[in-house]
Amino acid sequence: MDAEEFRRRGKEMIDYVAEYLENVEQRPVYPDLEPGYLRSLIPSEAPLEPESYEDIMKDMERVIMPGITHWHSPYFFAYFPAASSYPAMLADMLSTAIGCIGFSWAASPACTELETVMLDWLGKMLQLPESFIAGTDGQGGGVIQGTASEATLMSLLAARCKAVRRVQTYTSDKSEVEIFSQLVAYTSEQAHSSVERAALIGGVMIRKVPTDSNYAVRGDSLKKMVEEDKAAGLIPFYVCATLGTTPSCAFDQITELGPICNGENMWMHIDAAYAGSAFICPEFRPLLNGIEFADSFNFNPHKWLLVNFDCSAMWVKKRTDIIGAFKMDPLYLKHENQESGGHWQIPLGRRFRSLKLWFVFRMYGLQGLQAHIRKQVALAKEFESLVRADKRFEICAEVVLGLVCFRLKGSNELNQNLLKKITNSREIHLVPCQLSGRFVLRFVICARTTESRHIQQAWQHITQLTFEGLQFQLLTIKY
Amino acid sequence: MDAEEFRRRGKEMIDYVAEYLENVEQRPVYPDLEPGYLRSLIPSEAPLEPESYEDIMKDMERVIMPGITHWHSPYFFAYFPAASSYPAMLADMLSTAIGCIGFSWAASPACTELETVMLDWLGKMLQLPESFIAGTDGQGGGVIQGTASEATLMSLLAARCKAVRRVQTYTSDKSEVEIFSQLVAYTSEQAHSSVERAALIGGVMIRKVPTDSNYAVRGDSLKKMVEEDKAAGLIPFYVCATLGTTPSCAFDQITELGPICNGENMWMHIDAAYAGSAFICPEFRPLLNGIEFADSFNFNPHKWLLVNFDCSAMWVKKRTDIIGAFKMDPLYLKHENQESGGHWQIPLGRRFRSLKLWFVFRMYGLQGLQAHIRKQVALAKEFESLVRADKRFEICAEVVLGLVCFRLKGSNELNQNLLKKITNSREIHLVPCQLSGRFVLRFVICARTTESRHIQQAWQHITQLTFEGLQFQLLTIKY
Ligand SMILES: Cc1ncc(COP(=O)(O)O)c(C=O)c1O
Ligand SMILES: Cc1ncc(COP(=O)(O)O)c(C=O)c1O
Repeated sequence: MDAEEFRRRGKEMIDYVAEYLENVEQRPVYPDLEPGYLRSLIPSEAPLEPESYEDIMKDMERVIMPGITHWHSPYFFAYFPAASSYPAMLADMLSTAIGCIGFSWAASPACTELETVMLDWLGKMLQLPESFIAGTDGQGGGVIQGTASEATLMSLLAARCKAVRRVQTYTSDKSEVEIFSQLVAYTSEQAHSSVERAALIGGVMIRKVPTDSNYAVRGDSLKKMVEEDKAAGLIPFYVCATLGTTPSCAFDQITELGPICNGENMWMHIDAAYAGSAFICPEFRPLLNGIEFADSFNFNPHKWLLVNFDCSAMWVKKRTDIIGAFKMDPLYLKHENQESGGHWQIPLGRRFRSLKLWFVFRMYGLQGLQAHIRKQVALAKEFESLVRADKRFEICAEVVLGLVCFRLKGSNELNQNLLKKITNSREIHLVPCQLSGRFVLRFVICARTTESRHIQQAWQHITQLTFEGLQFQLLTIKY
Repeated sequence: MDAEEFRRRGKEMIDYVAEYLENVEQRPVYPDLEPGYLRSLIPSEAPLEPESYEDIMKDMERVIMPGITHWHSPYFFAYFPAASSYPAMLADMLSTAIGCIGFSWAASPACTELETVMLDWLGKMLQLPESFIAGTDGQGGGVIQGTASEATLMSLLAARCKAVRRVQTYTSDKSEVEIFSQLVAYTSEQAHSSVERAALIGGVMIRKVPTDSNYAVRGDSLKKMVEEDKAAGLIPFYVCATLGTTPSCAFDQITELGPICNGENMWMHIDAAYAGSAFICPEFRPLLNGIEFADSFNFNPHKWLLVNFDCSAMWVKKRTDIIGAFKMDPLYLKHENQESGGHWQIPLGRRFRSLKLWFVFRMYGLQGLQAHIRKQVALAKEFESLVRADKRFEICAEVVLGLVCFRLKGSNELNQNLLKKITNSREIHLVPCQLSGRFVLRFVICARTTESRHIQQAWQHITQLTFEGLQFQLLTIKY
């Protein structure tokens, strides 16, 4: 395929993509097929000779589309949103075409520099403390990670490195591994599984702090555990607090946790993967109060800020903490501007991801982005009211942003059955969570194109299935 | 921006991209600017209100392009290639549009399943042993990682987990961390820095095995180190062999290393990040002999197989080794087809990357891909002959694939000066490496569009700068 053909096929592809996104709501949101469906639909080996482009595009509809869970359908309410917007898609095309691998400043200065400045822009939108902004006299700054999981891992590794150095200054005879074996990390029992994975990878203990009735970690609970562990000769070194937990979008009390972390020399990382985007709105910014205590902070613009996957924004208060934990400079990576770029993440290679931020920020403007957040929160509130108005249902956690946790009053089984019916209907898509031992349905406003009518329709659909379910239950009880 | 505007802007972007790639050779391949250049060119905060699309695209030329190192210029000979092709770019647009986050089968069945089948296709192209192919009765299979660094880390962590379990079966009183402190990994002194990083992250010791005169690790050297370490009470558990090292594209002798690894219960990972693509050609496949001893194998189609970044292909002989090392299943990730997809990598979220493989394999066919590899190897040989014909220069390592290591006979300083001139001229771009303490220039065939005339031109340019350099030297010696 030469440039001429690419011009033609590329334009067809733009139409295909626009068509797909405009009409995705007409597709069943969740696929109806058996695991392993795909293998039998395509050859078992690559072709020797080129195939025609038409055949490949035909296979998109025959092979791929039936197996897609349509994350951008306005009837998709599962997990958390995967951001998508046209400006980000255009920027992504550019990033692919430029195709530089940004592992160092020299490998593409614009890539490294735009990233730093975009994270300053974003940090200012969130009103992060100056110490996190690179374009100040401070020592902090931001970097784009692929995912929140990588950000958490990086923060834990940096904390581990710092803890070892600190301990070795007063007990210089202790080996690194000896210290590892005494390190303890803390996170909420509601935290994302990536936190536990990070500890597993780093080879350190992790303890799950119990939460209060709002599923939030409080200072007292952390303090108690830390005291116990210190008494047992362990070394508390890291806390990952969550703002907007995955199950219920709960907010750990970072104003309480922060002083404890700072006082005990524990690294405080804040994972706001989903909720972080909301902090660009003044009315939600108070949820971030306490950020000044944090050593690192992370959220995913690729979840809720209209920037297509992957783009996870991470800030650290002291860049050298992260860089220092990993620096290794073979000659082929050396160049004259070592400090900027590189060494901040697990993969060395990376796409030119900041272009997506640049396009989205400029095409929407801060106000456009705020409007997006507010609209989605309002839709969640709308759904919440529908649930509250139906006495058969209950709301299971405070609705702060775009997630509504709800359930039928009654047994877990009842709710499991309801969810099974919803999933099988393929009209809307949800996933469950567990809260205080109860099986709960999570309803999240996901697609950029979700409107009030989709919420109304979704609720009607849920109540319809519930009604059928209850009828069936009554029947089985009667006979 | 609505779908209508996206259709228009998207088509303009296709033209911009085609135009960029068609004419990239006219741009200076390496930027001429000072670190920090970008910050002063753009505002220090995001705009409140939307800006015009035209302004943003104007800034592409004003702000971004001057700061790009053009990896796809035919005059780019640095690092290793970053793959790029039109079919992969089209597939990438689709992947962005579908925008599913493939962290589990249910999150998008097609994403998980196409990936498995594409890695079977690719595995067969490489004639991998059946034990690595998922569509057989075996226990192995492939997965797409973002980068080779992540693949290496995953293999080391899986090996660590396996080693701990094994040691604990015969010394059940040893704690995990105690075992960690005795584990030793091995890799070549020529290995990529990501191997050392993986060990650092995993908290285990790593030893660098010295290489022979071809910069390859041999069985004897490994064996000797392993014996020493065992005698010292340590537990050898992991070897990362490289096929195609970063400095000189050397090949560790895996037929010698394999039996040692298997005999000593050490996990053998093979990192063929760059060279792996060549193994689709029968004439280069012998370089992979010994693969049957490996537990895991990895190479980057995003380097040399025309699949745009990111796409790193990894195979393991026993899927459960990798999955077992990390499995954690909160309720919101549970679904009915647990085994396929997910849990094979550090990030949970991932793009629909296998679409790129599918498009590239089908649009090129195996023969088209082989032709690409062969052409680039031939170009490297062409450059090698030019160097060999000039008595002032020497070739510093056998030219097996697309990399030529060469230098001016004489001091390191002489070569450093030559490289500095080359870099500053911005007509071609190279990076150096160090071999046996000598400063060496690496000349790699990178861009898909590099032709003989670019090689000839590059050589002419190098000799021209050399001549000027020698003249200058003579002058300074004389006076
Ligand atoms: C609170 C929280 N942290 C981390 C993650 C993981 O995000 P990623 O896929 O970017 O690693 C999620 C994903 O939903 C999340 O909700
Ligand atoms: C031999 C080798 N291994 C690993 C890597 C790292 O690759 P990645 O950027 O995909 O992590 C490279 C990069 O050049 C390499 O040459």
